[in-house]
Amino acid sequence: MSDYLNDLGYLSSGSQLRRIYEKLQVAGDKVYSQAGIDFKSSWFPIYHVLAKSKRSLTIMEITNQISFSHITVNNVIKELLKKGLVQIKSNPGDGRSKLISLSTKGFELLDVLEPVWLLFSDELKSIFEISDILLMELMKEVNVRLEEEPLDKRVLQKYFNYSVRNAKPNEFKEIGDIMVDVYSSLKGFPDKDEQPEYYKMLSNVGELTKTKGIEILVAISKQEKIGGAVVFFNDMKDYGSGGSATKELEACGFRLLAVDSKLRGQGLGKMLTNACIEKGRKGKYKKLVIHTTKAMKIAWTMYEDLGFQRAEDLDFMQGELPVFGFRLEVS
Amino acid sequence: MSDYLNDLGYLSSGSQLRRIYEKLQVAGDKVYSQAGIDFKSSWFPIYHVLAKSKRSLTIMEITNQISFSHITVNNVIKELLKKGLVQIKSNPGDGRSKLISLSTKGFELLDVLEPVWLLFSDELKSIFEISDILLMELMKEVNVRLEEEPLDKRVLQKYFNYSVRNAKPNEFKEIGDIMVDVYSSLKGFPDKDEQPEYYKMLSNVGELTKTKGIEILVAISKQEKIGGAVVFFNDMKDYGSGGSATKELEACGFRLLAVDSKLRGQGLGKMLTNACIEKGRKGKYKKLVIHTTKAMKIAWTMYEDLGFQRAEDLDFMQGELPVFGFRLEVS
Repeated sequence: MSDYLNDLGYLSSGSQLRRIYEKLQVAGDKVYSQAGIDFKSSWFPIYHVLAKSKRSLTIMEITNQISFSHITVNNVIKELLKKGLVQIKSNPGDGRSKLISLSTKGFELLDVLEPVWLLFSDELKSIFEISDILLMELMKEVNVRLEEEPLDKRVLQKYFNYSVRNAKPNEFKEIGDIMVDVYSSLKGFPDKDEQPEYYKMLSNVGELTKTKGIEILVAISKQEKIGGAVVFFNDMKDYGSGGSATKELEACGFRLLAVDSKLRGQGLGKMLTNACIEKGRKGKYKKLVIHTTKAMKIAWTMYEDLGFQRAEDLDFMQGELPVFGFRLEVS
Repeated sequence: MSDYLNDLGYLSSGSQLRRIYEKLQVAGDKVYSQAGIDFKSSWFPIYHVLAKSKRSLTIMEITNQISFSHITVNNVIKELLKKGLVQIKSNPGDGRSKLISLSTKGFELLDVLEPVWLLFSDELKSIFEISDILLMELMKEVNVRLEEEPLDKRVLQKYFNYSVRNAKPNEFKEIGDIMVDVYSSLKGFPDKDEQPEYYKMLSNVGELTKTKGIEILVAISKQEKIGGAVVFFNDMKDYGSGGSATKELEACGFRLLAVDSKLRGQGLGKMLTNACIEKGRKGKYKKLVIHTTKAMKIAWTMYEDLGFQRAEDLDFMQGELPVFGFRLEVS
């Protein structure tokens, strides 16, 4: 039999999954409805986890157990709550999360559901068991692969194919806009009203390159889309920080690393940092100096992963904001 | 790695499909969004069919090509129309259906989408290709199996496990209600206002069994749920129709076959008919006589499939309604 989707090969894998899932879901709902059981196929895995758990669970625990998205689990819990099948209590261990368990009504339903599930299980086996190949094991493996590295990351890396080069003057304005956007939305970082001069500097970041020895590097896509930028200082006297960093000898540094908020998770920050490290190595410096703040958690972790060492002697206060120094040996 | 769903075996196949599909859909939408392409993963198969078709297509044609549900295709077409990616024209060959094709804007988008699809295809291959087992072929086979016999039908047959027996007096009222419900909702069949006496007879169908030789058979589930019923006449003089049927010799007959509208498609009508045929055979009759109307299309086809022959000599008018006779040899 000709099958349009199968002819499309791997590109249709999502659509093929969907049409099968759709048929199973519709069939499941028909069975529950005709058997007079007030239950939905889409509730199954979440209800099952709760029914078999010996204690209350958080949304996150359910999500982790079945590898569903947080939003799907959340929506199903809402539907179960509406039907009185679950009860939700506040979590004494964590104010932000809730503890979910089946209600008495929810547990009573289990006696009705289990005989039906046995019938489903038999029929699904006869549908999914194809020769001696374990389709179920293959699906498990596919899920693991998707958990390990999301498909969007894989595709976007190739689609954008970002690389780093020096920024062109006509790109300075957009780079400034990205920096303002990134820094102003950092939680715990001073906003425009608190440090207007700082934001003015960000907005006109291109001006810095008028000083010989200051460069702006951009992460630029195949499509010439700016993904992020960083300011590199060949001479620490221009670094412009508080503290003793500007007196650092045989050192280069970078500041104002920013990645377009819509492009997070694609490794652009790391790519820009590595480009700076590379410049440091080629420039025969002994060390690369940077600063960060507590608000920049992702960057902080990345710097540590790349081998940067905390340098308390470089710490300073920017207004009321503590700024923390790091060094990396590059010689 | 422990996997809650995998531990549930085949029962979790739907949930396993869903979590994979969910990840692919979210990833696809992220890629389109970040690449600045106004497109959604869920549109893919329908858009693709339209883009590659050399002519306009009906919803039904699209549905058949990709084996998606009618409702899903319909919803996606609505979204594509909203975005101006398709155009819809009335179908000169069939007033009830519409002809759908990509708009100029829709075709222009294809040039943007195709390079991205190539990247998706490569990545999906690396995810779905597991050793030399063709997961895609297995999914195709699963879809074919679900198309051939819907899962709900398989499960419900075993869940209800319907059989036929004589109705008990305490079931007469419910049988009457089912008959009124079925006949009053038949399109083209007289309603209560037009033939009040007929509906009164249906409602009190149990009364008929006071006449020796008239029996009511019910399709009854394992749970003692009534799925449908039929009135069997051992003596045609009691048959109560117009025309010459009541004078038929060496014949038995049945009338008022009705199946609960919520239980359609499970073969209950056929089961009741076969029970009547069986009674006819055991009762040493030569023929089984029935009547039906144009409004009862499904029944008409079933009777023909079971070997009933049209008998024009048994036709009659019930008020303004033409009623058509059939005979089946049972000796």
